[in-house]
Amino acid sequence: MNLNLLGYFRSGTSYRVRIALNYKGQSYSQDPVNLLEARHHDEAYRAHQPQGLVPTLQADGEDLIQSPAILEWIEESWPTPPLLPSDPRERAHVRAFAAVIGCDIHPIQNLRIMKHIKATYGLDQDGALEWARHWIHSGFEALEKLAHLHGKEGDFIFGDAPTMAEVYLVPQMYNARRFGVPLDHFPHLVRADAAATAHPAFEQAHPSNQPDAPHED
Amino acid sequence: MNLNLLGYFRSGTSYRVRIALNYKGQSYSQDPVNLLEARHHDEAYRAHQPQGLVPTLQADGEDLIQSPAILEWIEESWPTPPLLPSDPRERAHVRAFAAVIGCDIHPIQNLRIMKHIKATYGLDQDGALEWARHWIHSGFEALEKLAHLHGKEGDFIFGDAPTMAEVYLVPQMYNARRFGVPLDHFPHLVRADAAATAHPAFEQAHPSNQPDAPHED
Repeated sequence: MNLNLLGYFRSGTSYRVRIALNYKGQSYSQDPVNLLEARHHDEAYRAHQPQGLVPTLQADGEDLIQSPAILEWIEESWPTPPLLPSDPRERAHVRAFAAVIGCDIHPIQNLRIMKHIKATYGLDQDGALEWARHWIHSGFEALEKLAHLHGKEGDFIFGDAPTMAEVYLVPQMYNARRFGVPLDHFPHLVRADAAATAHPAFEQAHPSNQPDAPHED
Repeated sequence: MNLNLLGYFRSGTSYRVRIALNYKGQSYSQDPVNLLEARHHDEAYRAHQPQGLVPTLQADGEDLIQSPAILEWIEESWPTPPLLPSDPRERAHVRAFAAVIGCDIHPIQNLRIMKHIKATYGLDQDGALEWARHWIHSGFEALEKLAHLHGKEGDFIFGDAPTMAEVYLVPQMYNARRFGVPLDHFPHLVRADAAATAHPAFEQAHPSNQPDAPHED
């Protein structure tokens, strides 16, 4: 299948999709969409994704949008190695962990919301970062408890291999560090993040390894 | 299976779960969590759901949280009648439609965010409603385009029967009306919402038909 990713190196949702495709051993081309130059608001991009949000994954030319939907499609298309356990309730626990990030952390602190609160409530960059840190911190508190309640023995949240939990967690930890969120109180998250980032699929998906990342001379 | 829902009559995420269970013909008991009395912040509730958000679905006593995860679990547990199509890319389109609401509309305008912007930026109720209307409106613009791009012939967004699209859409339309969002520009959404709300599974899930809804004398 021909796969082409319209995304941005630093976008957490693009990062998730890169991780999952790498983990499944699928190769893909990339057409970067420069968010700082507001290319995602161009008509040309909005024809693929009416919200003007990244990423869009083109599968044989068909536009698939919204990373939670794309990730489920990837899991259904290439079930091995799995990113979800086989037991139905375990799947629900992994998906719940992912949804805390996918619904209640990332979308609250993404670029469009930060821009909106700055423009509407007159905040400066520090004020916007305060907002982002608040929602990341409160979400991480819940994730740490979920890891304690439902996690499994092993280096990852749900055992000895990465799952959708790490597909969502690693990009959110990257954002947390950029935004200056202290991580001392989240030992489960820090450990799983370290284990996952050492995996080649995750490493190759890192923002600094993307074609649109700025390179030092 | 013994199912018990810890939710709130007006919560959009609780409403989604009620719709799906009704649609699958599953009966369940309810233990309401009164959000206006802040019962979701009680230790007793947070032991089930560490974020202090509703709903929690107890399946034979096991706590399942985060409505996107609960809904996938319901679909996997009772595949008939389906709430997702069988074709993988069609499934991705339905899930993407749902995720626009589940990630980019509802969590931005839910009670905890509205409370936070009021407390932090000194907004009154009108200012908070302005915020909610903004994000609902921009999300609905994208959904209307997605319905046009990927929708199917029929009364519902994806054909002649409800899917996860309506499970998410109907509670969000209920919120949109409460918050005074004009709906004239969203004919696909209005039509699918009308078709779905006429279905007994959706009707019985309506906030006004729940045990914790205030009843007129």
